[in-house]
Amino acid sequence: MNQTPPYLVGLVGTGVSPSLTPALHMAEARALGIDYVYRTIDLTTLGLAPDQLPDILAWARRLGFDALNITHPCKRLVVEYLDRIDPLAQALGSVNTVLFTEDGLAGYNTDTTGFETAFRTGLPDVAVDDVVLLGAGGAGSAVADALLRVGTGRLTIVDIDAERAAELATDLTRRHALEVGNATTDALPRLLASASGLVHCTPTGMKEHPGTPFSPHLLRPEIWVADIVYRPLDTALLRAARDAGCATLDGGRMAVHQAADAFRLITGHEPDPDRMIRHFHHLVAPDRVPA
Amino acid sequence: MNQTPPYLVGLVGTGVSPSLTPALHMAEARALGIDYVYRTIDLTTLGLAPDQLPDILAWARRLGFDALNITHPCKRLVVEYLDRIDPLAQALGSVNTVLFTEDGLAGYNTDTTGFETAFRTGLPDVAVDDVVLLGAGGAGSAVADALLRVGTGRLTIVDIDAERAAELATDLTRRHALEVGNATTDALPRLLASASGLVHCTPTGMKEHPGTPFSPHLLRPEIWVADIVYRPLDTALLRAARDAGCATLDGGRMAVHQAADAFRLITGHEPDPDRMIRHFHHLVAPDRVPA
Repeated sequence: MNQTPPYLVGLVGTGVSPSLTPALHMAEARALGIDYVYRTIDLTTLGLAPDQLPDILAWARRLGFDALNITHPCKRLVVEYLDRIDPLAQALGSVNTVLFTEDGLAGYNTDTTGFETAFRTGLPDVAVDDVVLLGAGGAGSAVADALLRVGTGRLTIVDIDAERAAELATDLTRRHALEVGNATTDALPRLLASASGLVHCTPTGMKEHPGTPFSPHLLRPEIWVADIVYRPLDTALLRAARDAGCATLDGGRMAVHQAADAFRLITGHEPDPDRMIRHFHHLVAPDRVPA
Repeated sequence: MNQTPPYLVGLVGTGVSPSLTPALHMAEARALGIDYVYRTIDLTTLGLAPDQLPDILAWARRLGFDALNITHPCKRLVVEYLDRIDPLAQALGSVNTVLFTEDGLAGYNTDTTGFETAFRTGLPDVAVDDVVLLGAGGAGSAVADALLRVGTGRLTIVDIDAERAAELATDLTRRHALEVGNATTDALPRLLASASGLVHCTPTGMKEHPGTPFSPHLLRPEIWVADIVYRPLDTALLRAARDAGCATLDGGRMAVHQAADAFRLITGHEPDPDRMIRHFHHLVAPDRVPA
């Protein structure tokens, strides 16, 4: 008789129906002998507005959910409905994991911890004295915090939107007591001439936005390149980086570690990230028939 | 890789937190290799009123539930919110199982089918020419329909409340085109002097209502006795009936078959009722430490 309690988890956001996170969580739970059901709560499909988030939280709790993952456009909105928030998530102002506990709703951000672990395990021992982060949106923000935690010396936030890049840089500078630079994409040739690494946090390279976010001619073998796009897993940017002789990190590792960190928070059980990575590769295999 | 989709099911009613049905469903699913989470949605604990049933149904559907079991006090209330209803449930005016289908909400009553199967398998070949049904509430109503389906010749509804007995008898007479009698409990000595069997459908014998529903001296070895109380499984009535030499049927078999019938409707998979009965006996074992 299985004595581990069953878990019920959901993912709230727009367009989340095709997410791989439910399959990742459930396969890992199955491997650990845990009953685990993970549902997508797709605001788009359901015709729900983000301002109905309080209702979603209240009903999910009433109907027996243990936790929710939260994604676009609710990661910042959800903060005001929490009873407790983890310091890393609090600093970011962004939550992707809400636990329904006996003491109320507790918020965490496993995007930032997930990228941190992905980076530490996927690109161990690379230089971080000068890192360029391309894309100052929500994902870029979570990644920037992780980069500063792993010891990045000089960080430059680059975005096509100068204001957005400056805002994130200002916020990081204030919170981390360390000067973070900002620039627009036309500065990339200059920045990449001296950078030790680059993290790509824009949607370019996804199926719907094919191509590379900048000219691959800017890549030198001395630069490591991390992409957070994971569908496809092997993006045009990563292919170009490998061709240029760069060390690379694909987006799958961050996707898996954010899921693994959430799984650990929800269940208290230790997931096996290597097993989850193997499963993730199976899920995104190009020849896979969509479920 | 498990290819069966995961199922999410709930039980809506007052005071349902201690229900054994979640454990019964989940253990059977586990034995079949199906991911299955079953939650209690206890109106008492949650401070929800039965008239919030439409909200509960809407949110359960949005949050990814496949089905709900419905119990007191919502079995009749739920009917008006359904898109389709099974003929047996329609006739009864009572639904204990709601499926969220692509074509809307579909209602079933597995109390009546569950008792029917329990009776056919637990008391095969007993005489049903003259049956007394004690207790004209919701459970009694579902059992009465089952008794008429298995060929009961003369059925008498007995209740301490004469009006309630008469109402159920009138309803059964109208729906089954067959005269159903009614009486109050003081008629039991006369009725049991000639009855072939008795089904007990009141709460007497439950932990909170100890004792027997009538004097055991009225029992004769020629009468079979079915009890629908299952906590405890071995009620004072059943013990007295065995002492009197009666064939008996305990309430566990109905509880299991209502769950098995719901499980089949929800998943399309065939449960193993014998395995479920063994598990049920384990769950209600007197020495079992409450979970």
